[in-house]
Amino acid sequence: MKTLFVNGNVINVFSEEIEKNNILIENGKIIGVGNYANDSADEIIDLNGKYVCPGLIDGHIHIESTMLLPSELAKISLAHGTTTIIADPHEIANVCGKDGIDFMIEASKNLPFDVYFMLPSCVPATPFDESFSNLTADELTGFYASPKVLGLAEMMNYVGVVNKDQEIFNKIEDAKYFSKRINGHAPLLSGELLDKYISAGIKDDHECSNLNEALEKLKKGMHIMIRQGTSARNLSALIPLFKKPYSNRCMLVTDDKHPADLLNNGHIDSIIRQSVSLGADVISAIKMATLIPAEYFHLEGYGAIAPSYNADFVVFDNLEDFNVLDVYKNGNKVVENKQTLPFTTPHIKKFLYEKTKSSFNLSPLTESDFIISPKTGSVRIIKTIKNELLTEEIIKPLDFSKANGIDIDSDVIKIAVFERHNGTGHRAVCYINGLTIKDGAIATSVSHDSHNLIIAGANEKDMALAGNTVINAGGGLAVVKNGKVLSLMPLPIAGLMSELSAQEVASQNQALRDSVSALGIEQGIEPFMTTAFISLAVIPHLKITTNGLIDVDKQELVDLFV
Amino acid sequence: MKTLFVNGNVINVFSEEIEKNNILIENGKIIGVGNYANDSADEIIDLNGKYVCPGLIDGHIHIESTMLLPSELAKISLAHGTTTIIADPHEIANVCGKDGIDFMIEASKNLPFDVYFMLPSCVPATPFDESFSNLTADELTGFYASPKVLGLAEMMNYVGVVNKDQEIFNKIEDAKYFSKRINGHAPLLSGELLDKYISAGIKDDHECSNLNEALEKLKKGMHIMIRQGTSARNLSALIPLFKKPYSNRCMLVTDDKHPADLLNNGHIDSIIRQSVSLGADVISAIKMATLIPAEYFHLEGYGAIAPSYNADFVVFDNLEDFNVLDVYKNGNKVVENKQTLPFTTPHIKKFLYEKTKSSFNLSPLTESDFIISPKTGSVRIIKTIKNELLTEEIIKPLDFSKANGIDIDSDVIKIAVFERHNGTGHRAVCYINGLTIKDGAIATSVSHDSHNLIIAGANEKDMALAGNTVINAGGGLAVVKNGKVLSLMPLPIAGLMSELSAQEVASQNQALRDSVSALGIEQGIEPFMTTAFISLAVIPHLKITTNGLIDVDKQELVDLFV
Repeated sequence: MKTLFVNGNVINVFSEEIEKNNILIENGKIIGVGNYANDSADEIIDLNGKYVCPGLIDGHIHIESTMLLPSELAKISLAHGTTTIIADPHEIANVCGKDGIDFMIEASKNLPFDVYFMLPSCVPATPFDESFSNLTADELTGFYASPKVLGLAEMMNYVGVVNKDQEIFNKIEDAKYFSKRINGHAPLLSGELLDKYISAGIKDDHECSNLNEALEKLKKGMHIMIRQGTSARNLSALIPLFKKPYSNRCMLVTDDKHPADLLNNGHIDSIIRQSVSLGADVISAIKMATLIPAEYFHLEGYGAIAPSYNADFVVFDNLEDFNVLDVYKNGNKVVENKQTLPFTTPHIKKFLYEKTKSSFNLSPLTESDFIISPKTGSVRIIKTIKNELLTEEIIKPLDFSKANGIDIDSDVIKIAVFERHNGTGHRAVCYINGLTIKDGAIATSVSHDSHNLIIAGANEKDMALAGNTVINAGGGLAVVKNGKVLSLMPLPIAGLMSELSAQEVASQNQALRDSVSALGIEQGIEPFMTTAFISLAVIPHLKITTNGLIDVDKQELVDLFV
Repeated sequence: MKTLFVNGNVINVFSEEIEKNNILIENGKIIGVGNYANDSADEIIDLNGKYVCPGLIDGHIHIESTMLLPSELAKISLAHGTTTIIADPHEIANVCGKDGIDFMIEASKNLPFDVYFMLPSCVPATPFDESFSNLTADELTGFYASPKVLGLAEMMNYVGVVNKDQEIFNKIEDAKYFSKRINGHAPLLSGELLDKYISAGIKDDHECSNLNEALEKLKKGMHIMIRQGTSARNLSALIPLFKKPYSNRCMLVTDDKHPADLLNNGHIDSIIRQSVSLGADVISAIKMATLIPAEYFHLEGYGAIAPSYNADFVVFDNLEDFNVLDVYKNGNKVVENKQTLPFTTPHIKKFLYEKTKSSFNLSPLTESDFIISPKTGSVRIIKTIKNELLTEEIIKPLDFSKANGIDIDSDVIKIAVFERHNGTGHRAVCYINGLTIKDGAIATSVSHDSHNLIIAGANEKDMALAGNTVINAGGGLAVVKNGKVLSLMPLPIAGLMSELSAQEVASQNQALRDSVSALGIEQGIEPFMTTAFISLAVIPHLKITTNGLIDVDKQELVDLFV
């Protein structure tokens, strides 16, 4: 059956013009654009002068950060005009290994929403990360046979690249052998080191936070992914890249988006709106979210409204607000008047489903798991800083005669990490300053990049309860006070993702935020954000891993007592 | 060993700027661009402020039209800054089938000049062409395993594409299966037919002769190859395409270049010079001859001066004349002060070499082969038009009582075609007006697209001698008068290519032109150009094939006598 869309104002990403044209589609493909007459089709849809652009593409996103299954993300993203995403399943791969990647591929199948994947290149992220498994080049290479796999995901280990580490070299060579892309991740890398990094074959970067950094990378041949996510927001610094000739080498990506942000502000459409409000040309912005990523990733049939392209397009009402009304995917209407229409969710193989739902290999915790045996001398305390992932080190003596060293008045509480993947029993407990928790405890299974169980609290009993609450939920975030669970967001899929809708997850998240304040936490402190990165031994200066405290600058374990 | 090129004015095709930068290379690759110090390399080459751009790429050329082997073409093209070509071996494939393609791949191996291939899609070009063989999809598909093969060459049979002819469909699907490009060839195709043609997956065109045609194709997603060859010259009509955003979808190609034109005017450098003189921006022109074709054909490592790219670059002295001085290929100097340095020519397998050198399967000709048995009635005469490939039909009675119908005073002479590939004995003789040959004869084995033997002359004896001269040379072009060979350009490789240098071939060609005038031919008539297309049954109106006269408009054989 042929369908003709008439009276559209069609965004042509090749000529960068708006054309009054009709669009003829058949079998999910665009087969003609021009002055086709009504009798050339079986069905006519009148666009009444509304604007039409190609379906938007997010060139780099971690689905796990949305805490949603791909099918639930699709519902929100489609309503905002995004019809294709390129995802890095780095987080679930840390928790479930290859099965995590397979799960994400299965969970994305046959959606009216294209999910392509880049293979996680750095699992675990550091030698100090205790992930479920170490994903080697040999384990990854089989995935390139999948048409859904477009390459190797963000290569964070720039030192390994520059020093030609054999295992990293193997991963890169495999991607090149299959003519696949290799995503970069090289914040502030410059000069000779950047040249070496690019020489390895890494051709894009989404970590640029200033214009000079982006321009150097672009001039050296990299495509720049302008990132505007929930936390990392580089758009305003990089707005000059929307000008030619730069715009032809840039795309728009989110990297990490939280459900409330998706619901309230949108997805790639939100970046287009912000770009326009910052002075960018709307057609350049649309091109950077359609044709440029499609051609960069060699996605034939994506990114334009022209013959031979997929009938993926977005109908919107004006060029300033980019207000998405209707969306078509492969010729089918998937969003009508801002509402995503129902679709069938994918069937996931039982084995994969059960594997991701039983990611906790950890016995129930007791108060005694959090007791520190006093020694003489001062104690290394992690000091967190508001709105930063950086930490500092405080060294001072603690009074162990009461509360096992906890000193609420001085904001010294406890934080613990428990290895949860392989039952190693590896664990560490230490002291932390800056979270401002005055009572109760929080626990989370979202802790980059290995996602072990993190618990912070003002007393051991609530810490044990918070930890057990998360363990019993198969993962998630919990807030506990006085022996009672104040709130819980279960994340049963790998301890990272919910099975609920974005609305429900956002609502649970709000409940967590509300209950956190009952712990006496100061305004502006985000305890779950801080704890999510407290175990990542690449961010200076003092972090806690499953094997103990680590001095990030020296990259070595250090003792609790000095 | 590392080599540092210092003090260059480097053309950056990403930022479209000229940067004062040093270029560091190692093992044939660029490993750094920036302010590298002299002590970062083992060898320093001072560019003394000269300009440097990436090696030029010709996105579409038929090597056979140069009448040179790839190694001889390389000598000329390199000196003009072209380091990579994408060739369609359509002509030799008509003469030698798959072996012809293999020969060209072998004859291009290990040159300091990259020759990539598109597979001839239309052999034979028409059902009336008697080629050596019919190249089917099944025969072509094995070639995609070669890293030198980038796709399917110009799809001339647009009717077959639009009507979904099964064999054409198979060829296209194979190219798509291997993620390869499919070159278009669709002069003046527009509207719905163009949409169908593009929908088949054909994404470029090099036949645009006017701006509107090019813009329609570009807006529908095609890359436009701006062709400026020896005969077909579309540059001035398409000069507005050098402006943005169009320039990012356009490249520069020659299609067909003759040796004297290459020697006297250059290759892609000549198109850049002409573009600039027509008002184009030189950096846009360079980009259209480097980055754009490289990215279109997915040639990783080509088309830019940046880390990870091949060290292919051109040193030139100013932006107006684009005067090429030195050329580097894979880091080696291959042209020094305009002179191509010696290199080893490829060894070609004996079997392939002998196959291409024995392409004539035709017994010696005698006068009687050219005698036409008179019948009653008028005769169909091919009328050629100066500077055109079109022909017309004259119908008139001839006087067979003398000279077997030849009438020099009325400019009615004979033309004959002999099938030369498979010994079928198929042949045709008829009359022609417009060549203005008053004495003697010419013969040629260059006759598109099947390259059978064509002989035109004012008497049968000279026609036989001209034909036999070409047969004995294993192919070529000959001019004969009064039983003597006035000139001969042997083309022993498939009857299409010489083994001599461009200088020698150009000199032989000049000798042919000089001797042609001895046949009394009028000024401005190009008899070899006319005869080269006299057998191509796609150009209206009356042509001669190995099976007789053909009415091109009706696509049917017609009798000589009416």
